[in-house]
Amino acid sequence: MTVGVGVIGTGMIGQDHIRRITEVLTGGAVVAVNDVDADRAGQVAAGLRRAGLPSATVHETAKDLVTDPRVDAVLVASWGAAHEEQVTASIEAGKPVFCEKPLAPAQDACLRIIGAETARGRRYVQVGFMRRYDAGYQAMKAALAGGAIGAPLLMHCAHRNPSVPPYGFTTEMAITDSAVHEIDVVRWLFDEEIAAASVLTPRRTSRAAEGVQDPLILVLEMASGVLVDDEVFVNAGYGYDIRGEVVGEHGTVALAGGGDVTLTAGGRRSRNVPASWQERFVRAYDAELQAWLDAVARDTVTGPSAWDGYAAAAVTDAAVRALRTGQRTPISLSERPGLYAKAS
Amino acid sequence: MTVGVGVIGTGMIGQDHIRRITEVLTGGAVVAVNDVDADRAGQVAAGLRRAGLPSATVHETAKDLVTDPRVDAVLVASWGAAHEEQVTASIEAGKPVFCEKPLAPAQDACLRIIGAETARGRRYVQVGFMRRYDAGYQAMKAALAGGAIGAPLLMHCAHRNPSVPPYGFTTEMAITDSAVHEIDVVRWLFDEEIAAASVLTPRRTSRAAEGVQDPLILVLEMASGVLVDDEVFVNAGYGYDIRGEVVGEHGTVALAGGGDVTLTAGGRRSRNVPASWQERFVRAYDAELQAWLDAVARDTVTGPSAWDGYAAAAVTDAAVRALRTGQRTPISLSERPGLYAKAS
Amino acid sequence: MTVGVGVIGTGMIGQDHIRRITEVLTGGAVVAVNDVDADRAGQVAAGLRRAGLPSATVHETAKDLVTDPRVDAVLVASWGAAHEEQVTASIEAGKPVFCEKPLAPAQDACLRIIGAETARGRRYVQVGFMRRYDAGYQAMKAALAGGAIGAPLLMHCAHRNPSVPPYGFTTEMAITDSAVHEIDVVRWLFDEEIAAASVLTPRRTSRAAEGVQDPLILVLEMASGVLVDDEVFVNAGYGYDIRGEVVGEHGTVALAGGGDVTLTAGGRRSRNVPASWQERFVRAYDAELQAWLDAVARDTVTGPSAWDGYAAAAVTDAAVRALRTGQRTPISLSERPGLYAKAS
Amino acid sequence: MTVGVGVIGTGMIGQDHIRRITEVLTGGAVVAVNDVDADRAGQVAAGLRRAGLPSATVHETAKDLVTDPRVDAVLVASWGAAHEEQVTASIEAGKPVFCEKPLAPAQDACLRIIGAETARGRRYVQVGFMRRYDAGYQAMKAALAGGAIGAPLLMHCAHRNPSVPPYGFTTEMAITDSAVHEIDVVRWLFDEEIAAASVLTPRRTSRAAEGVQDPLILVLEMASGVLVDDEVFVNAGYGYDIRGEVVGEHGTVALAGGGDVTLTAGGRRSRNVPASWQERFVRAYDAELQAWLDAVARDTVTGPSAWDGYAAAAVTDAAVRALRTGQRTPISLSERPGLYAKAS
Repeated sequence: MTVGVGVIGTGMIGQDHIRRITEVLTGGAVVAVNDVDADRAGQVAAGLRRAGLPSATVHETAKDLVTDPRVDAVLVASWGAAHEEQVTASIEAGKPVFCEKPLAPAQDACLRIIGAETARGRRYVQVGFMRRYDAGYQAMKAALAGGAIGAPLLMHCAHRNPSVPPYGFTTEMAITDSAVHEIDVVRWLFDEEIAAASVLTPRRTSRAAEGVQDPLILVLEMASGVLVDDEVFVNAGYGYDIRGEVVGEHGTVALAGGGDVTLTAGGRRSRNVPASWQERFVRAYDAELQAWLDAVARDTVTGPSAWDGYAAAAVTDAAVRALRTGQRTPISLSERPGLYAKAS
Repeated sequence: MTVGVGVIGTGMIGQDHIRRITEVLTGGAVVAVNDVDADRAGQVAAGLRRAGLPSATVHETAKDLVTDPRVDAVLVASWGAAHEEQVTASIEAGKPVFCEKPLAPAQDACLRIIGAETARGRRYVQVGFMRRYDAGYQAMKAALAGGAIGAPLLMHCAHRNPSVPPYGFTTEMAITDSAVHEIDVVRWLFDEEIAAASVLTPRRTSRAAEGVQDPLILVLEMASGVLVDDEVFVNAGYGYDIRGEVVGEHGTVALAGGGDVTLTAGGRRSRNVPASWQERFVRAYDAELQAWLDAVARDTVTGPSAWDGYAAAAVTDAAVRALRTGQRTPISLSERPGLYAKAS
Repeated sequence: MTVGVGVIGTGMIGQDHIRRITEVLTGGAVVAVNDVDADRAGQVAAGLRRAGLPSATVHETAKDLVTDPRVDAVLVASWGAAHEEQVTASIEAGKPVFCEKPLAPAQDACLRIIGAETARGRRYVQVGFMRRYDAGYQAMKAALAGGAIGAPLLMHCAHRNPSVPPYGFTTEMAITDSAVHEIDVVRWLFDEEIAAASVLTPRRTSRAAEGVQDPLILVLEMASGVLVDDEVFVNAGYGYDIRGEVVGEHGTVALAGGGDVTLTAGGRRSRNVPASWQERFVRAYDAELQAWLDAVARDTVTGPSAWDGYAAAAVTDAAVRALRTGQRTPISLSERPGLYAKAS
Repeated sequence: MTVGVGVIGTGMIGQDHIRRITEVLTGGAVVAVNDVDADRAGQVAAGLRRAGLPSATVHETAKDLVTDPRVDAVLVASWGAAHEEQVTASIEAGKPVFCEKPLAPAQDACLRIIGAETARGRRYVQVGFMRRYDAGYQAMKAALAGGAIGAPLLMHCAHRNPSVPPYGFTTEMAITDSAVHEIDVVRWLFDEEIAAASVLTPRRTSRAAEGVQDPLILVLEMASGVLVDDEVFVNAGYGYDIRGEVVGEHGTVALAGGGDVTLTAGGRRSRNVPASWQERFVRAYDAELQAWLDAVARDTVTGPSAWDGYAAAAVTDAAVRALRTGQRTPISLSERPGLYAKAS
């Protein structure tokens, strides 16, 4: 079966997912598109036609797309503020929906999405936390599960971007856009919630824009006491570098990363550091969306849930408060519906 | 467009390619199967049906499959001795054909395939040398092309398998089945032919079967004088380990390999070594066959050619003679038809 | 010239320094020993005699040793509480003195030693912070000085011991005995004082003794804002593992460590992790004491000063308070005498 | 006891050993010097005096130095052609002698030295093969002895120098001066003799002087069949890089090398490659000579023997013939006197 996918939001991310479905993955076809910028949606559809692919309908509204009978499943890659309405519409139409992070910018909106799902008694939503599909994090989780290092006690993370745009990037975005990936991944790795957040502020790099605190260290306390420190450094300059090491009772497991070849020249032995998140996580994005298509074809939903989207929003909210107040900030979540029972 | 693929040979390799086309790659569908063991072909077709996939016709003969109008392109994964006839039939039917290595066991047969292609004035054949699609070798070739190490002078390779079956594996197979991969990859890396082969015989492992020389070192001399030493060790025990380092005029570039995580425990810091060629080259196989499907869809043929299949056969023949005689054995190839003009 | 060394304290550390002076280093000879346990001092002297070395006088009191005319320089390896009196006696006798860490357990005692030195207008004391002599930290400091990573912004450290004795080890000792090494080394690396300390408490390992918080994370704020996080984990089980990575404005530099050979076996590629601090820092101890002997022979004193000993005591005091109160604790130091003017 | 050392040959190597004995090692003092260039010897002695060290007598002849009663042991760092006479004189004077490699350029001369030792019934000579004292090779030998990889089957070596002087360096010197180190170290690692040598000639680097074959690959066959390939590349340009990997029946062990810190900057993660043999093996030289002084003080001789010097000469002779003839060249040694019974 080929899953007919309707894509809402045909900007950079949406187009990349369309390329992925069309040129890389199996089992899906883009049958409909929608964008607030109707011209852009039209151009994307025209591009598909030119490539000899089956035609994709351009819908005037997201709602029209959702209810298009050719659309088996919806992919939401629009502006975050629009997610709630589009995701909820998909749920109400009984259609699986992949929603790019954030599920919604506000916790309340996330809870309403959860309400829509629980009202229907089943999951429809997969949230785009692609790191869970990275081979490194998966090997790390397997090592934990296999007892290779004993009970986890703490984790060191670093999230380094080469740079961010000089205008428009705020310190809060280092949490809501960057650290949110570690926030999700540690919840998944340790299979538990985050209980509190604090923020430490090292010396600022001179490369950061006026008023932006970069780097910062986000400290997360898991419910069990496992402590996570996450260096978030969005103007690190040298490359895109993601680190992680879990320290357990009798060993540690760390992301290895490391490039395909070793070059020895000019007195140095070296490996490449990825230049961008696209390069670093290209396979994770592919695996994430393939898993979604496969699940849809089997009439199920897997991967990060609406609950995970909500929890991430709750933690980023607390972390932003911690940043502003300089205080450790506890996190309390709503009751977790049975629909989202824990599972690795 | 979806490429209708007919698969000849539904043993382990053939089934794996079918799984790949069906579950991993995009743009292809298995529409026909054939096997000398008709029952096996039938079971494979039944499996596709059970998975809800479009039906694949079971053909009694390879020839029937090749001429089936639903078959746009042929994938040959049968016994080596049958390749010539099946590949030639595909060429004569004007259909692109992916042929697992070896193109044919004998040089003469390879030349006849080349004759069939040149008679039609275009390429139809892609040979299954998947290492050219490995990210490591590709980065190595890019480093060479980019001048990172200067002109290449020599290369060290190692090809280690954990083990081979205790019966039926001969020393010659270490050349024809194992080293053939390095033979192809160095021709591609350095974009030139191999001029001579020699074999050195180290101390035998006690794990090798009676009469089998394992490990051995194959020495290849490229036309330009670049020297390649290739340790072939098929009972290495500890894992599947592929090494390669090109030494150039001002630096070296080596396969990095290396595992997704680093584990520190019990006084050791370690990374995983792949257990098998399937694990090591899974992505190369995927990329190889996706490249084939993409090329077929564009009505072209890329990748390792019939000429590459022939050259590999000529070199393995010489290497086997070198093994038997203990002598350095020069290699002379037929004239290279213009159809196979060099290109990186 | 051979420096005549008088050793006060002939326990494990003192004996190790005697072995070093006698069997490894050049330019020194042990000419006198003293210990609160006179028998032990006598046995050590007898051991030197048996090894055919020049005789070492056994002194009843530390003061007698210090004033022995054969003693050119004093090495203090006694109990910390005795250091003040012994070091001060050496200063008053005008003799260079190497004092194992801590210079003195209390800040006041350290300040009195500083007073004794400043009264005489020159340095006599080298404190036993051997990490400054480790090739790894020296290469790190050279990289910083050479501008390889730009201005430093933060540093991640880990200090992992395989285990500590089940009785007698308190959480405070993880700061005063273990983290004190990072406290000194970051002051030296960044050439500035530490302004505040905080302690974070991850989930406890089940291997820690009742009531002991292990691991803990010590957070140090340098005067310039550079932030240091130091994971101190004294029951890490798997080995003795010292990590350090300085993150700067355009790169990072990290201790490489790593073993002399790479072993590939049983599906893993691995290197050794040191089993103990003795194994990890053996060369640093040698270099530290050779530097002392060399300086004494040139009638000078180099290396970590009494000021460094005092500053370390001030920081560990603050860190212990931070541990007990859970609060960030600022550190204020006395005015720094000109005698201890900064220098890399 | 302080060993009085007489140094014959005060060129670069001799001066470096004098510095070592004087400033780094324990238990030795330079008491006499001699050089064919009497002025140079005089300057070296004057330098020792200026440094406040006990005076060293300048002898007109090597023989005078050897018989000087203050000289307990002789260090020969003169021109190779002079070694036989100087070493033999030391033996006849009953004095331990450390002789830089080669023991003597010709096998006959080596055998005469062996004759002088066996006539006196004990060893006097330690030959300067310092790699046996390198921590990496020692860990490799320990791994072999401990059974970590099973019986050894083959070994890959590389010996890369950044460059050699443009004039005066011949291809033969790549064997006699460079590969001789691997020749000795594999005899020691595997505790057996080398039975045959061959030379392979890759494409020449354009950096080599006219008429010089660089790189070359020396193939050594151990008596047991263990095969060693040694890439010798004396104009490798990028640094001084020594590699070694022993492949055994169930694993491999390789020199790790690798630098003290990892630098991440400019899109690369890198470690330093040594710039010179002095940098790479500084500790091995120290350990080698300390071991000699320690042995002399205990009235014994350890380390590489005159037999090892002879065997190295026999192998380099054969390798040079193999280079010239292009043929595999067997090696036959004289009978090994009982004085040189094997021992690890």
